[in-house]
Amino acid sequence: MAENKIHKLALQKQERFSQPEITNSISISKLKGKRKAQPNTRKLINEILNGDITALSRAITLVESKNSKHIKKANAIIKACLPHANNSIRIGITGVPGVGKSTFIEAFGKHLTGLGKKVAVLAIDPSSTITKGSILGDKTRMEDLVKDKNAFIRPSATGNSLGGVARKTRETIMLCEAAGFDTIIIETVGVGQSETAVHSMVDFFLLLKLAGAGDELQGIKRGIIEMADAIVINKADGDNIKPAKLAKVEFSRALHLYPEKDSKWMPKVSICSAMQNEGVTDVWNMILEYETLTKQNEYFEFNRRKQNKFWLIQTIEEQLKSDFFNNSEIKKELKHQLHLIETKKTTPFSAAEYLLKL
Amino acid sequence: MAENKIHKLALQKQERFSQPEITNSISISKLKGKRKAQPNTRKLINEILNGDITALSRAITLVESKNSKHIKKANAIIKACLPHANNSIRIGITGVPGVGKSTFIEAFGKHLTGLGKKVAVLAIDPSSTITKGSILGDKTRMEDLVKDKNAFIRPSATGNSLGGVARKTRETIMLCEAAGFDTIIIETVGVGQSETAVHSMVDFFLLLKLAGAGDELQGIKRGIIEMADAIVINKADGDNIKPAKLAKVEFSRALHLYPEKDSKWMPKVSICSAMQNEGVTDVWNMILEYETLTKQNEYFEFNRRKQNKFWLIQTIEEQLKSDFFNNSEIKKELKHQLHLIETKKTTPFSAAEYLLKL
Repeated sequence: MAENKIHKLALQKQERFSQPEITNSISISKLKGKRKAQPNTRKLINEILNGDITALSRAITLVESKNSKHIKKANAIIKACLPHANNSIRIGITGVPGVGKSTFIEAFGKHLTGLGKKVAVLAIDPSSTITKGSILGDKTRMEDLVKDKNAFIRPSATGNSLGGVARKTRETIMLCEAAGFDTIIIETVGVGQSETAVHSMVDFFLLLKLAGAGDELQGIKRGIIEMADAIVINKADGDNIKPAKLAKVEFSRALHLYPEKDSKWMPKVSICSAMQNEGVTDVWNMILEYETLTKQNEYFEFNRRKQNKFWLIQTIEEQLKSDFFNNSEIKKELKHQLHLIETKKTTPFSAAEYLLKL
Repeated sequence: MAENKIHKLALQKQERFSQPEITNSISISKLKGKRKAQPNTRKLINEILNGDITALSRAITLVESKNSKHIKKANAIIKACLPHANNSIRIGITGVPGVGKSTFIEAFGKHLTGLGKKVAVLAIDPSSTITKGSILGDKTRMEDLVKDKNAFIRPSATGNSLGGVARKTRETIMLCEAAGFDTIIIETVGVGQSETAVHSMVDFFLLLKLAGAGDELQGIKRGIIEMADAIVINKADGDNIKPAKLAKVEFSRALHLYPEKDSKWMPKVSICSAMQNEGVTDVWNMILEYETLTKQNEYFEFNRRKQNKFWLIQTIEEQLKSDFFNNSEIKKELKHQLHLIETKKTTPFSAAEYLLKL
């Protein structure tokens, strides 16, 4: 158990500098003329399928690597793991900083491992290249969960583009599932389009909120409320209980105004105090209720197929766009055409035609 | 005045069959060895700039044509008109069928022409290829506005893609503005992504609603409420006045929960009876208030520049995607890759890579 914790902390530490370290280990291995650090791919696959989290961590590091050999290996591992993935519930959790995401995930995760679940906690944070991993960075707030042998915590994948980060996270989900994790939690702070990305890779999307006087939705980006399957008002303890209950009424009313979801699930609002471990059971029961409903009406599988198609199309479109707009001639001409539009010398459509012809 | 009406009705009639008629006139002109039917482009431009609506109608027909010569002419006309466009307020109006859009636009338009405004009413209806122009098709409901010499009503542009329809509408807006129309109303029934398209080409976006017991937002697509600058509850007359007032309270509360808009405009709710011509003035005053605010804080011009850039990028992206996905080999392989994803033999990302390499 203690060893497990140390291992996890070591991995987290390593994660922060993973790119340089990988490069480093490669140059060392090149010097030695062999690749001692990289275990045999088939062995790694077997270990993952046996639930070995050291092997899982190594595979994730390969997934996150930019080295072409690592990518090739990662793809082979993912392909082998694919038939064993998919048996899980994937839960997305978002909320503004300070809402108590870490405390909530710790209490929620402990509750689940107590029920015999195997819980993987991942994060999407496209800004982490700048902030050096603000999410899940401070592990001291999840110290109980870190010690838990049925929990696996992995700091955010980093990357320049949300697409890249999303891909790494999606592949990590598959690896975790193949390693036997049946509950996957994806956390995001909601920078840029990250909630949309998370929403497109989970079964259930949970928005954490704080009770406050009025202006309940301040600080939440447009569209987030509509994506939520549940709004959980955290820190409902002490003097906060009354405002939390009021906020619950207000959110329930707001949610009621939205059109019905494709899942036929009516989003729910609940209150909890992760700190005092209250209301966490309710959240899990709500998710079970959602799972039962959507498995009965077949939305669950339908949605996963839809998400697969979404990521296929999304990846292609992102690549087409990036190939086009990163072309140096296009870059120069785009600027010029925008100037012509502003000075009313051309229309956006003629400008587009001109650029496409280049 | 009567002549004007007849002319408009003739144009509307013509519109429904505009494509075949154009083809026809070309073959006739070819037989005659000259293009009598098509007036000189420069003359047409001058007439448009002088506010001649017959010339305006002809130019719009050129914009809507698929004939390459017409497209060339249309582009020349648009280019010449561009410096004279932009001086208007563009208002988008959406609402489910039966909400009374035509009646509202008639009352609203009459109010505006009464104030000395020149009003152009256009429509976006991507489904009109199927329904043969459901929007603005039944002119009998706007018969007063049709007679008004300061109003110009043009049925929806048709087309296979929303992108194409949007382009035609955007270009028609410019032509109308160059012809001196200072208030442009764009109507949509909200099929597919048409509200988003309309929202991206107007200054002010208005959602028409009916009062109903509970479930106020039923039938409205997700995201529409967030786009609205105003919700106007129509048919607030007779027994409907009380429910309309209740709905107003409910919507105001819901709108209050949304985060602040970039425009700093706080969306408003008002009630009206277009049939009894009540509350229409309030709507216009609200729009004037919006215009004053956003011109003061410079959001008005900022948003138009943003919209120009949006259409430039949007057009390019649509074309890149359509070139890719309409490729026959890609079509075949895409189907196969989707099958491989469903049978867990590949991931969406590997499938995307494979398709992009083709």
